[in-house]
Amino acid sequence: MHLRGAKAFKDIANFQDYHGLPEFRNAVAEFMGRVRGGRVKFDPNRIVMGGGATGANELLMFCLADPGDAFLIPTPYYPAFDRDLRWRTGVQLLPITCNSSNNFKITVEALEEAYKSATEANINVKGLIITNPSNPLGTILDKDTLKKLVTFVTQKNIHLVCDEIYSATIFRPPGFVSIAEVVQEVDRCNLDLIHIVYSLSKDLGLPGFRVGIMYSYNDQVVSCGRKMSSFGLVSSQTQHLLASMLSDEDFVGRFLGESSKRLAKRYTIFTEGLKQVGISCLNANAGLFYWMDLRPLLKEPTFEAEMALWRGIINDVKLNASPGSSFHCTEPGWFRVCFANMDDLTMETALQRIRTFVDQKKGGEVMPVKNKRWQKNLRLSFSAQIYDDGVMSPHKSPHSPMPHSPLVRARN
Amino acid sequence: MHLRGAKAFKDIANFQDYHGLPEFRNAVAEFMGRVRGGRVKFDPNRIVMGGGATGANELLMFCLADPGDAFLIPTPYYPAFDRDLRWRTGVQLLPITCNSSNNFKITVEALEEAYKSATEANINVKGLIITNPSNPLGTILDKDTLKKLVTFVTQKNIHLVCDEIYSATIFRPPGFVSIAEVVQEVDRCNLDLIHIVYSLSKDLGLPGFRVGIMYSYNDQVVSCGRKMSSFGLVSSQTQHLLASMLSDEDFVGRFLGESSKRLAKRYTIFTEGLKQVGISCLNANAGLFYWMDLRPLLKEPTFEAEMALWRGIINDVKLNASPGSSFHCTEPGWFRVCFANMDDLTMETALQRIRTFVDQKKGGEVMPVKNKRWQKNLRLSFSAQIYDDGVMSPHKSPHSPMPHSPLVRARN
Repeated sequence: MHLRGAKAFKDIANFQDYHGLPEFRNAVAEFMGRVRGGRVKFDPNRIVMGGGATGANELLMFCLADPGDAFLIPTPYYPAFDRDLRWRTGVQLLPITCNSSNNFKITVEALEEAYKSATEANINVKGLIITNPSNPLGTILDKDTLKKLVTFVTQKNIHLVCDEIYSATIFRPPGFVSIAEVVQEVDRCNLDLIHIVYSLSKDLGLPGFRVGIMYSYNDQVVSCGRKMSSFGLVSSQTQHLLASMLSDEDFVGRFLGESSKRLAKRYTIFTEGLKQVGISCLNANAGLFYWMDLRPLLKEPTFEAEMALWRGIINDVKLNASPGSSFHCTEPGWFRVCFANMDDLTMETALQRIRTFVDQKKGGEVMPVKNKRWQKNLRLSFSAQIYDDGVMSPHKSPHSPMPHSPLVRARN
Repeated sequence: MHLRGAKAFKDIANFQDYHGLPEFRNAVAEFMGRVRGGRVKFDPNRIVMGGGATGANELLMFCLADPGDAFLIPTPYYPAFDRDLRWRTGVQLLPITCNSSNNFKITVEALEEAYKSATEANINVKGLIITNPSNPLGTILDKDTLKKLVTFVTQKNIHLVCDEIYSATIFRPPGFVSIAEVVQEVDRCNLDLIHIVYSLSKDLGLPGFRVGIMYSYNDQVVSCGRKMSSFGLVSSQTQHLLASMLSDEDFVGRFLGESSKRLAKRYTIFTEGLKQVGISCLNANAGLFYWMDLRPLLKEPTFEAEMALWRGIINDVKLNASPGSSFHCTEPGWFRVCFANMDDLTMETALQRIRTFVDQKKGGEVMPVKNKRWQKNLRLSFSAQIYDDGVMSPHKSPHSPMPHSPLVRARN
């Protein structure tokens, strides 16, 4: 390493400012604005680092709530929130029930109902959490809904936490609307109540780098979060790399375009392929997964039947599609299927297996997968936390199923 | 980037296993053994990642204690423990009083006394925390003391948390003795009670990389800590770099030798320079700082006088030496001086300033530093958390002094 390199290395390795490298913060703020079509600007000084979205989410809970306080959250929701948001903070999550009758949209009625139940039970509701785009639905919230949510939290004077970690995975219209845009348009919006969680794990495919961001419009939350960020700062080496990567506007543009194109292609192949065997999915336009409707395959409309079906898929087909119950879905029969983190051959194989499974299931019994080569190359990866998930709460039995790994993962 | 590079990058960026890259875990275990003279072996499977020692320490508290539980800790101790160990966990720290009469050594009497007071107050004592080498003392614990501590925790059936993050900063005899060696020699030692916190921030000078390690002999703690490590995993990019760096045995050997030599030189220059103006320090052989005895300069033996002296040093001499009160020292007049994180010119200047200050103080009034160039180049860095510290607890007034930044830090 020549001297300039050594000097630069020393500066980076020694850097430990809770604010982060200025070039990193600026690049992330710039990137967040770009992903939102340049319609909003983000202030680099409001960017607080957390250890992945996992750490950023927890940090926000520690800032906003005391043990016993609650946040409302629409179902179905990301299973690891039960760990990330509750485990060490003592915070409760209270479901807002959404269902397929209106494509799992959040209604003000359901919201008011959940809030009322909580207050009647003497629970201190501190806020509302939304994921937009939604994991597991793959859908986005429209501007009208977002405005209603902002109005709701303003009226109740509770916080709104917007997890937007999939904001750059939109692969077809309509375009993404960030809460950052909506707050500019809502009258008397109390910005002190609005907080965004972001990450580069999904949007840039860098989960290993542990880049989580808490962005708050509330000065006190920024200040408190900054002090707590010492528990999950981003490696300065990684800050340095990303500052350089993200400041290459041409690269970022090509990456986002290519990523969106590939996701659209995968989504179309999968959903079309399933449609041919009579399986439909929730109409989606974002995310690295889709929400598959296997209700026609249930023996009866119960969660026991859903788990039986899930075990059948696991054991006989050697694929893992996460059952809706693990996302707190209130209707049995929905499954989340990750389609992004595999190569084309793996995807084709997985799709073919699902099709065969569905065909056999409809015709009667299922033939277990026999092909040895498949079993070897497409074996399930219970331990892989490639794109997210892997709930490992201590409250769960070690023998409980861990249904949150990607659909399938090829190992070479 | 050629194709092999791209493939390797993808694998690393996607890697998100809570166990860490095997080559990283192996290299860290190997390094920890080497720093301890090869007298003990560390099991890579017991290495749990945390976000710096800060995150690793907190993680251990979450694993071992419930809110309200307490840990005993000898004074003086690292001020940020008040944040790292207590802030989000609800754990209490109960001081074990050590003082200069025996060079701040931990005695069994003081230990028993602290334990007795706690149990009488109905406090649930969960363990004992030691830093070895000590921050702020720069001293190490001898084997006999360590054995007594192990016997003590075994008898009381409480945990022993050994923070050994300065283990590679020994710069002169006697050599370092790790708790890992001692537990092999104590009869009926209950290994389930023994836990080590490690980091590469001090020993390799890489605070920016946020590498914290929790190493436990207790399987349940390893398992629980591993699940929690999602809040502070080490960036896979950094794991990859360090695996490569640490597996270069020749480099590691030269680094450790050179580092030790330079620390010894700094320590000698500083302590000899101070001795000439009648100021002594606690006899030390480790760490990046020394414990300076300014009791002769106090107007009276009170903490008010200590703070007055500290303000004098800050305002007139433009240097920051951390007052003992911030380390919960029970005797006024001690100051921690960091001597490692500055270039030679800065160090010479700092030493000269202290000498001048002491001379003037003894002779009467102090002349404030007038030299503009000094003021510019050697200005205090309240915000720099270069080697550690920077307590920013929310419980502190924003106007309270933050006496934990390094002695002086040059900016170019």
